[in-house]
Amino acid sequence: MTDDPPPHPALLPAGFTDLLPPDAEAEARLTETLTASFTAHGYQRVKPPLVEFESTLFAGSGAAVAEQTFRFMDPESQRMMGLRADTTPQIARIATTRLAHAPRPLRLAYAGQCLLVRGSHLAPERQVAQAGIELIGPDLPAADAEIITAAAAALHAAGLESISIDLTMPPLIPALLGDAAPHAALIRALDRKDAADITAQGGSLAPVLLALLHAAGPAEPGLAALAAIALPPQIRLLADRLAATVAAIRAEAPDLRLTIDPVEFRGYRYHTGIAVTIFAPGRQAELGRGGRYLCDNGESATGITLYPDTILAVAPRHAPRPRIFLPHGTAPAIAASCRAQDFATIIGLVPAADDAAEARRLHCTHLWRADRALPLQGS
Amino acid sequence: MTDDPPPHPALLPAGFTDLLPPDAEAEARLTETLTASFTAHGYQRVKPPLVEFESTLFAGSGAAVAEQTFRFMDPESQRMMGLRADTTPQIARIATTRLAHAPRPLRLAYAGQCLLVRGSHLAPERQVAQAGIELIGPDLPAADAEIITAAAAALHAAGLESISIDLTMPPLIPALLGDAAPHAALIRALDRKDAADITAQGGSLAPVLLALLHAAGPAEPGLAALAAIALPPQIRLLADRLAATVAAIRAEAPDLRLTIDPVEFRGYRYHTGIAVTIFAPGRQAELGRGGRYLCDNGESATGITLYPDTILAVAPRHAPRPRIFLPHGTAPAIAASCRAQDFATIIGLVPAADDAAEARRLHCTHLWRADRALPLQGS
Repeated sequence: MTDDPPPHPALLPAGFTDLLPPDAEAEARLTETLTASFTAHGYQRVKPPLVEFESTLFAGSGAAVAEQTFRFMDPESQRMMGLRADTTPQIARIATTRLAHAPRPLRLAYAGQCLLVRGSHLAPERQVAQAGIELIGPDLPAADAEIITAAAAALHAAGLESISIDLTMPPLIPALLGDAAPHAALIRALDRKDAADITAQGGSLAPVLLALLHAAGPAEPGLAALAAIALPPQIRLLADRLAATVAAIRAEAPDLRLTIDPVEFRGYRYHTGIAVTIFAPGRQAELGRGGRYLCDNGESATGITLYPDTILAVAPRHAPRPRIFLPHGTAPAIAASCRAQDFATIIGLVPAADDAAEARRLHCTHLWRADRALPLQGS
Repeated sequence: MTDDPPPHPALLPAGFTDLLPPDAEAEARLTETLTASFTAHGYQRVKPPLVEFESTLFAGSGAAVAEQTFRFMDPESQRMMGLRADTTPQIARIATTRLAHAPRPLRLAYAGQCLLVRGSHLAPERQVAQAGIELIGPDLPAADAEIITAAAAALHAAGLESISIDLTMPPLIPALLGDAAPHAALIRALDRKDAADITAQGGSLAPVLLALLHAAGPAEPGLAALAAIALPPQIRLLADRLAATVAAIRAEAPDLRLTIDPVEFRGYRYHTGIAVTIFAPGRQAELGRGGRYLCDNGESATGITLYPDTILAVAPRHAPRPRIFLPHGTAPAIAASCRAQDFATIIGLVPAADDAAEARRLHCTHLWRADRALPLQGS
């Protein structure tokens, strides 16, 4: 704490914001649209709490977000608790404890807020909405494909027509580099996708690494290139899994814009198989991200998290609901009838000298006058 | 922290729970229903963050929940932040800062989670959902009545037909007792509504206090009794405001079950006028609560917070969505058509030896067979 004067009453901590009208309504409706689509695809909603013991929050894949998690002591148990920074580890916990005996494949959905200790330069937000699905059980290309097509369907329901989906296989490069501590310079070169540097640092693996690098791009030519590379059998299995996943996606969604990137492996800290990032076309912002991982008990699972705040910025908005001003004393039955016609009703609390002027002052689009909804000019 | 072994992975801190299927879905749909009703009544959604500086969180009416608020230091600003324990103070902050220039009356709605440091014996939950409305601006009976009828309409939309609404005027008893430090024993007697004890402790005020006590009950006879009591002019104004609010409610909702309790004044820590508690009939649980208060800048406002978790326990449930099992290889267009008919589709990831058995194992109500949705017996 400092001795500075208290902040201005409107000041929020960096990375926290108030959503105002009409954005808060749009975000809520968007989240409803995404979760309704998840439900229609057989994913049943669960709602873990915002707070857990850190020992359960950081188990399994949760360890990846430990340093981004706000922690404080529970005065009741005197144990440390954390505010979730990611929902997926909580869903995995529920799947392997309370729902351990539910039949597999187990399909779960969620939507809620997460809190981060620090924002980044590119993503300063420290409260992030998440809406996602997890498919717990079989480690199959069809399962990886299902969460991808279900996420794409949810984004389609939200009005996003031409998303782009990038598939990676994060275990591939580590498996290729082997157990020997990899050369930091080579990791950096792969990370920057710098062909000259990969050649310089890759040693005997350089030809394979360069071929993998060149296979990145649209899925079908990329898979053809990948198939032509001479790979050790263990690596070939991973490449084949990527190809099988693309095939399973194509069976469900032939027109989806798919790219593959066999060299990408950073930033997927707990993924043990196919991983995925969803982009809006021509934009840097990620609409969602996910992939295959292991639950704390070793059970395989895959999932995708969508980011409603990011999606809100690119999704088409619903037309705002028309607002009708009902002068003081308008019968309640008229108000109810206006609401049944999808108006938001704004009731005059006192008689107004000029109802039309009062309606405009309150940003109404319509005025109830002479037994009908009169559209207001200029609104 | 203790040296005890870590808790079982399924253990959550006291007062925190996982909502599982179908409860999580039911709670989300209930909240959507409540907020859609608020929107139809002209209340525009805002979404304050879960975290604020404690200096803004505890300003004005927020001081009442300071001791129930989890606090921790912001590593970025090194100021103390708090996790909201109540949403109303945040809405008041938004109204008087970012929306200071929005026209009055200003109608705002919200829905989200709150966190409490300690649960109580009767209400052990430490994460509490809130969905509410605030009407900022005119201090009028019509404004008090509007938030009450709007909250009742939202509960009606959620399927609750016969709620009971208790109106109080928390400033009345303190105004009657006057500036002199009131006798603690009299306060306790009033709190317990103990007529004998009020007589013993009330001194010269005992007859008026007993008459007020006897006015508690159904609104119309209560108001008649209240009208017959000889009250000092300042107290009469407060009683008249209660009567005017009941009249304004009756104009909108003649059949609402209303009670008044002129003696009640504890537990409304920041209310400066009419306060309200909403009950399900025959139940102790509060469905909602609210009343008139002052924003940090002195502007008058009134609002009601509904508690979706409590409402969920008494509201009728929607019929669960039928679940249809689509055997492996079912065409995507059939899945889409089932979803359009409001089925949740469960797609077979691998061929099943017995599709009907697999459908039952996955708790499906229907199976896609021979080009139609076959209902499964016993489901």
